[in-house]
Amino acid sequence: MPPLPVVEVIPVGGIKRIRKGDDLGKVIADAVQAQGTPVRDGDIVVVTQKVVSKSEGRLVELAGVRPGKRAVALASELGKDPRMVELVLRESTRVVRKGHGVLITQTKHGFVCANAGIDMSNVEAGYAALLPVDSDKSSRKIRRRLERETGKRLAVIVSDTFGRPWREGQTDVAVGCSGISPLDRLVGKTDPYGYVLRVTQPAVVDEVAAAAELVMTKLSMVPVALVRGVSYKRGESGVKSIVRKRSLDLFR
Amino acid sequence: MPPLPVVEVIPVGGIKRIRKGDDLGKVIADAVQAQGTPVRDGDIVVVTQKVVSKSEGRLVELAGVRPGKRAVALASELGKDPRMVELVLRESTRVVRKGHGVLITQTKHGFVCANAGIDMSNVEAGYAALLPVDSDKSSRKIRRRLERETGKRLAVIVSDTFGRPWREGQTDVAVGCSGISPLDRLVGKTDPYGYVLRVTQPAVVDEVAAAAELVMTKLSMVPVALVRGVSYKRGESGVKSIVRKRSLDLFR
Repeated sequence: MPPLPVVEVIPVGGIKRIRKGDDLGKVIADAVQAQGTPVRDGDIVVVTQKVVSKSEGRLVELAGVRPGKRAVALASELGKDPRMVELVLRESTRVVRKGHGVLITQTKHGFVCANAGIDMSNVEAGYAALLPVDSDKSSRKIRRRLERETGKRLAVIVSDTFGRPWREGQTDVAVGCSGISPLDRLVGKTDPYGYVLRVTQPAVVDEVAAAAELVMTKLSMVPVALVRGVSYKRGESGVKSIVRKRSLDLFR
Repeated sequence: MPPLPVVEVIPVGGIKRIRKGDDLGKVIADAVQAQGTPVRDGDIVVVTQKVVSKSEGRLVELAGVRPGKRAVALASELGKDPRMVELVLRESTRVVRKGHGVLITQTKHGFVCANAGIDMSNVEAGYAALLPVDSDKSSRKIRRRLERETGKRLAVIVSDTFGRPWREGQTDVAVGCSGISPLDRLVGKTDPYGYVLRVTQPAVVDEVAAAAELVMTKLSMVPVALVRGVSYKRGESGVKSIVRKRSLDLFR
């Protein structure tokens, strides 16, 4: 029996602080080359949302934000900075839950998460980073640039750190993807015991994002990882295609 | 600068069909040896819930289950097998949501998931597999046996495939762990920009479970994976310690 394929998660360091307008695809291509881990065909390049947002100019200086009445009231209720709440409301289509100092909203992308994915870690003091406007499109742009630069067929995932109901702690999930189908559809296939799988659709992009986080924690200045050896389908439906419809959602 | 540490996810194949009473720690020790990937100090051994449940005799023949009134009514409402619903109710402390053919309950462990984690894939026809009674304890038992057998310091995670609100698809999460602290606590630490992280606690056990799934899909008969190179803290608080208190949970 040939050995089973191993998955490798390779951190990519040596990336400078990213600023608005930086060509992220080029920066990543240079970094993997410089550290001696050039990309190979099929590699999945995971990029944290923070550097994507920076390159796209999605940083907002809090001092310049004028909170409206609703933001002031919510901030007071939850013990939050009213300017931050104002940004959250601007990036959201609705508030899903609030309480215990936590504000869960639905973003314009359809994601349900704390603070519309806005946070202040790993940015210059006094600034907040918003999610990319269209993180599937951001992924596509980075993938195309990286493929052109390296001559390899790649997939790109933009990841962010989300909390979840029912469990403490956070995991990284995909907020955008390109060159990879977000779900590995097994529905209708048969397991080794002859049972037809009815609902199983591993969310491979979220599992890859979680795996990547293992080598790029928030303290380490590693905003990119290569995930190598994953069997996946190519596709361009994006993470937006796995946002559950509100009409089918039991928790919205 | 020394190269950054790579994480490897190594599938473990060649594992026979597990039956009640099988010594899973010994089976895994033999399998990693046989395939030429002996464990090393610090390796995290991820074991799917299904084989743990089998070794612990947690299979139930559906033909022998007599559904009660509540199960019959719920099954009819949701279009499910009443015997299956009866098992779900027996393993649960409460129904959290129902609708669209889905039954979300809180298990006796405190997990909130579909069908109390019970399913019929990868088991003999006509049987359903329940979650282990205490999956942290199961993890500990496997870890100790594996450590005795191999002479290495290890961590063990028992994983299962859970759906999630708001997104289609499933990811593997930890339902039990031993030798590893489930959260990698960063709270109060300072990021490279000087920002004090306030809520960040990566759920390393869930990220490792997700990474492991990438090499052991339901169709491949790979119920075990080694995850090597992850930086983690040892601990015995178990997955039960990250179940959010109901009083703090906005979605229960």
